[in-house]
Amino acid sequence: MNGAGNLMDFLDEPLPDVGTYEDFHTIDWLREKSRDTDRHRKITNRSKESIWEFVKSLLDAWSGWVVMLLIGLLSGTLAGVIDLAVDWMTDLKEGVCLSAFWYSHEQCCWTSNETTFADRDKCPQWQKWAELMTGHTESAGAYVLNYFLYVLWALFFSFLAVSLVRVFAPYACGSGIPEIKTILSGFIIRGYLGKWTLLIKTVTLVLAVSSGLSLGKEGPLVHVACCCGNLFCSLFSKYSKNEGKRREVLSAAAAAGVSVAFGAPIGGVLFSLEEVSYYFPLKTLWRSFFAALVAAFTLRSINPFGNNRLVLFYVEYHTPRKTTQLGKYPVLEVIVVTGITAILAFPNPYTRRSTSELISELFNDCGALESSQLCDYINNPNMSRPEDDIPDRPAGPGVYMALWQLALALIFKIVITIFTFGMKIPSGLFIPSMAVGAIAGRIVGIAVEQMAYHHHDWIIFKNWCRPGADCVTPGLYAMVGAAACLGGVTRMTVSLVVIMFELTGGLEYIVPLMAAAVTSKWVADAFGKEGIYEAHIRLNGYPYLDQDEFTHRTLATDVMRPRRNEPPLSVLTQDSTTVEDVETLIKETDYNGFPVVVSRESERLIGFVQRRDLILAIKNARQKQDGVVSNSVVYFTEDAPQLPASNPQPLKLRRILNLSPFTVTDHTPMETVVDIFRKLGLRQCLVTRSGRLLGIITKKDVLRHMAQMMNQDPESIMFN
Amino acid sequence: MNGAGNLMDFLDEPLPDVGTYEDFHTIDWLREKSRDTDRHRKITNRSKESIWEFVKSLLDAWSGWVVMLLIGLLSGTLAGVIDLAVDWMTDLKEGVCLSAFWYSHEQCCWTSNETTFADRDKCPQWQKWAELMTGHTESAGAYVLNYFLYVLWALFFSFLAVSLVRVFAPYACGSGIPEIKTILSGFIIRGYLGKWTLLIKTVTLVLAVSSGLSLGKEGPLVHVACCCGNLFCSLFSKYSKNEGKRREVLSAAAAAGVSVAFGAPIGGVLFSLEEVSYYFPLKTLWRSFFAALVAAFTLRSINPFGNNRLVLFYVEYHTPRKTTQLGKYPVLEVIVVTGITAILAFPNPYTRRSTSELISELFNDCGALESSQLCDYINNPNMSRPEDDIPDRPAGPGVYMALWQLALALIFKIVITIFTFGMKIPSGLFIPSMAVGAIAGRIVGIAVEQMAYHHHDWIIFKNWCRPGADCVTPGLYAMVGAAACLGGVTRMTVSLVVIMFELTGGLEYIVPLMAAAVTSKWVADAFGKEGIYEAHIRLNGYPYLDQDEFTHRTLATDVMRPRRNEPPLSVLTQDSTTVEDVETLIKETDYNGFPVVVSRESERLIGFVQRRDLILAIKNARQKQDGVVSNSVVYFTEDAPQLPASNPQPLKLRRILNLSPFTVTDHTPMETVVDIFRKLGLRQCLVTRSGRLLGIITKKDVLRHMAQMMNQDPESIMFN
Repeated sequence: MNGAGNLMDFLDEPLPDVGTYEDFHTIDWLREKSRDTDRHRKITNRSKESIWEFVKSLLDAWSGWVVMLLIGLLSGTLAGVIDLAVDWMTDLKEGVCLSAFWYSHEQCCWTSNETTFADRDKCPQWQKWAELMTGHTESAGAYVLNYFLYVLWALFFSFLAVSLVRVFAPYACGSGIPEIKTILSGFIIRGYLGKWTLLIKTVTLVLAVSSGLSLGKEGPLVHVACCCGNLFCSLFSKYSKNEGKRREVLSAAAAAGVSVAFGAPIGGVLFSLEEVSYYFPLKTLWRSFFAALVAAFTLRSINPFGNNRLVLFYVEYHTPRKTTQLGKYPVLEVIVVTGITAILAFPNPYTRRSTSELISELFNDCGALESSQLCDYINNPNMSRPEDDIPDRPAGPGVYMALWQLALALIFKIVITIFTFGMKIPSGLFIPSMAVGAIAGRIVGIAVEQMAYHHHDWIIFKNWCRPGADCVTPGLYAMVGAAACLGGVTRMTVSLVVIMFELTGGLEYIVPLMAAAVTSKWVADAFGKEGIYEAHIRLNGYPYLDQDEFTHRTLATDVMRPRRNEPPLSVLTQDSTTVEDVETLIKETDYNGFPVVVSRESERLIGFVQRRDLILAIKNARQKQDGVVSNSVVYFTEDAPQLPASNPQPLKLRRILNLSPFTVTDHTPMETVVDIFRKLGLRQCLVTRSGRLLGIITKKDVLRHMAQMMNQDPESIMFN
Repeated sequence: MNGAGNLMDFLDEPLPDVGTYEDFHTIDWLREKSRDTDRHRKITNRSKESIWEFVKSLLDAWSGWVVMLLIGLLSGTLAGVIDLAVDWMTDLKEGVCLSAFWYSHEQCCWTSNETTFADRDKCPQWQKWAELMTGHTESAGAYVLNYFLYVLWALFFSFLAVSLVRVFAPYACGSGIPEIKTILSGFIIRGYLGKWTLLIKTVTLVLAVSSGLSLGKEGPLVHVACCCGNLFCSLFSKYSKNEGKRREVLSAAAAAGVSVAFGAPIGGVLFSLEEVSYYFPLKTLWRSFFAALVAAFTLRSINPFGNNRLVLFYVEYHTPRKTTQLGKYPVLEVIVVTGITAILAFPNPYTRRSTSELISELFNDCGALESSQLCDYINNPNMSRPEDDIPDRPAGPGVYMALWQLALALIFKIVITIFTFGMKIPSGLFIPSMAVGAIAGRIVGIAVEQMAYHHHDWIIFKNWCRPGADCVTPGLYAMVGAAACLGGVTRMTVSLVVIMFELTGGLEYIVPLMAAAVTSKWVADAFGKEGIYEAHIRLNGYPYLDQDEFTHRTLATDVMRPRRNEPPLSVLTQDSTTVEDVETLIKETDYNGFPVVVSRESERLIGFVQRRDLILAIKNARQKQDGVVSNSVVYFTEDAPQLPASNPQPLKLRRILNLSPFTVTDHTPMETVVDIFRKLGLRQCLVTRSGRLLGIITKKDVLRHMAQMMNQDPESIMFN
């Protein structure tokens, strides 16, 4: 790691790209950390020199909080704009506001003075398309025309979304959470969090959600917030030049994303901690907390109409990339799925409305005056209780009708959500899975309620359900169902419960929500330990080391390269390799770095040198340093010997040598090696026996070995 | 680490104590983990042999959840019993219930039918001592008698508490959180979580809280829950025999403790994560969540009267041990402080009542009919609004009186709390610091309210405070003040906010609470980075590696032993040391282990052997293995050579040799070494250069070096 110290001096020279990484490679956390400490030390030392340097050091110390503030402000603003745009465009599929075409249905009637609270959905300014074009409102022709235009708008929105993604920013599709998880674990995917992705994802997210597809906007909002984080990183060299520090900012940005997606700042911090982040020191926790706070506050200032918190809220997911035949034609796929969704969704009132409105209705309990079909109970005529304590009542025909429609909606949602995931548009999984859970929960809730009403002498009801009491709340069943379904998909526990009660304000339901989260986790884990994001990461072959325990009894010697029948390890010697040898080695192999040993005979390890740094250093020396030719000897020792003048000038490369490479012995069990890779974020590790270098283990080797031990195809691990 | 595998075989032999640690020593996390994996692997292999073994393996897999269930049940029960006992004994200081002496004031009047809701505090069955003894109630003599008995009871309770702690369980004093933090980081303090501590702490906690001292019961409840965790660990060899696994259970137990202390299950999990725990993998998060859930549920079942959540809640802290003159006489100290507390507290109504009741009153807002002195506002006669929307009103004389009393209570609380910390009784800091914050907050709140009422044309009030509106809520100021004060003391952020809103149900105040937490953290950090628990750990000299970044530019070679002028490192050779040599080495040094090298000339490292294991193995061999004498050669190689019969029989010790000791090079920067110690939980690490062994760094060396770099006394680090 002292090499890193020397690296910094090297960086001061005008040599771009030393210490950076190539696309689709893994970063070395220890090295990044070391570089940041050097930078920090340098600034601290300089700060004593002048007032200006002191001010600069203060700015540097506060830059973390400034970045958090900016991320909070921008992601809150974007989420607010997206919310307003989605509201407007979703309503545009059905009609238009005559007084101002940029008003959504709610805003249109809100500004109209003629409506009372009960009729708040109906006002003359808001006209459905058929009414506007033909003047009719209730005829069969008007219904068909509305239906047709609804499908047409949906197709138009989704076509626009998929085309924009395809042409301008392929990385904008999906939810982005699996990729962000991978990036946070130390992988480089250039452009994934770029400005272009930010712009296109924001626009297409509005289009995709407005088209009525069975997808959520919460996951993509996390991606959008991370793009904001990456954008602001570029303002400060502290973050833009250090991949480790950058990831601290991105973890906090993910928290801000969930904060605005669900209106749940604490839930956002916990989501980032439990689900997304890889390294999450306490400092990042406090910064995430601050970013989430600013973001939630900004969103609330921009969109004061978002009082219905559920409308603010979503969490999403992106389908596996094992594509179908249709998957080869992404535009066609999106059009077909949108068409089917729109055609099937329109006739059923529970699928036509936006999913978050549906969830909100399912969560709510029936007041005495509720007009919803779900609340068509037969009221007891001599009821004299206050409104908020209504005893269980027999269901009326509306409720039975609603039950049938909900059952159809449940099947439809399950099937269409499966097909919607993984299309090439921004899409989230949170809201669709909550909807499935909420529908199932509400159906069960109504069934139990009616059973309790008609059979209150049954043993299970006897003790806690007196006749005439309000003992079953179907809305609570829906809430618990939604939490359980979401928990099963993502395997969240703590963050799930916090998000649910920040979302619903139902702090008193914490115990049933916790019980649902634990149960769904147990049941889901019995089928397979992987949550949806991990499954996605595995399908894409990203190099992600998850937290699962490795329990096989293999040793480092079983995993290291070279294997028994392979050619020996490519090493450099400290004082007997020529520039030509090095260049040949670089040309003939594609390893990311080479160990440096005392001599080929003793095989005693001196250090490790990165391929990328080696190429840059030799190129630079050949250009600028006179006398360095192909048969110059490369020295990694502290002092190069005095050579006779006839010999070519030596090339001293100790400054790019990492003098503290990580080593383990060949007897180290793989579980310890996996632990070291995971906790220290290593890129590679050298294997020795009694001080002799035997081989090397890279992160890829570790992942392939783990895949092999779990009887998976080791070739599915594709990147370094 | 393969050594650990061999160690297991060794453990099967009847050799007790191999693989255990001495008191006040640090555990080796990697080794514990390795041992657990071996155990797990063995059980998995055996499970295929018979149905009985399969059932045993299932039991083993579920034992973690079973332990959590038991911890939740017992700690919930204990917390419920403590709550009820404290209620009764606190009231006993003032009077007694005639109908049943074991009823508290509230229960006494609750069961009486004669009282109305408004008079729920007055009933004939409850009699103050003076009333019972003299028949008078309102006279000056009765007041003095009540005062005298109040002080007497307080002195009796605190004397009993301090004597019990002193005689039976010295570890039961204080809050225990700093020690639990240290234990969770891998330190051994035998008896700290024992059965005796559990019993005495539970009893003395009731006495200490009832005596009216300025202390909280929340911190001690965390200690009590951890004792429960340790108790149930002993039921399963999986946990009792593995110090690493035991600490996973203890982390979850701490969560259960906070869950019952505050009635805040989610807050408990986050407190354990943010404040207490050292290693907190996701699996522990889920288990903590479950334990906290069960504990909260059990508590609610036992103590259904605890609807006033604040009464359930406390967090505590234990004062630094740098004792005063008085500190040498702990019993006297407690008696004196209790006497002063009782004498000064009785006359002021805000200090006489229990601190949690005080906080509860300060948090509450004034309704129109509120009888509290704090709510003595001058009502507008033509007020016709609903009760819950009362506009700002001018303060009456009662409010001004209350303000003076609150100001006195504030000073008293601050001073007496400082003296109460660190006495030799169970004591917590949460409630006292919340009380200080809440009093200050309420005073500021009332001041702002009156300013807004009298000067609503001032610029700051103009925009958000119309005349006749309810624009200032003093109760909210108290809540924010409590959160800010607590945040400053403990430096919690996320867990603080979650605990506050689980406590108060005020989900809508999340934004001011978050702002208070962030601000108080910033301000407190400007004075010093250490929270109260870290300060306490440092004062006690415990070996705790905190999360602060180490930014000094030192290298492993600067820290390792031996230093330049010291004798060379004590090593063993793989095949040329005799039993006598080893015994001499053990006698002459007190190192915890010795590196094993190929030969003294080559200094190539083979492995590391623990002192404790070496002593046990030699003792065992001398007793049982014929022919092992003082000049037998000790072999650490795979095969001992065939020796002539005249030579003494060799002693083969490869099975106790750790073949994968952790090594770093001498050039490794100390920040990396610190990181490795912290993240992998190492006990020691060997230092090499080019494959040659140079020295050793232990956790103590690291901590001493860190203390030195921060200009602290390195000798303050006392334990290994």
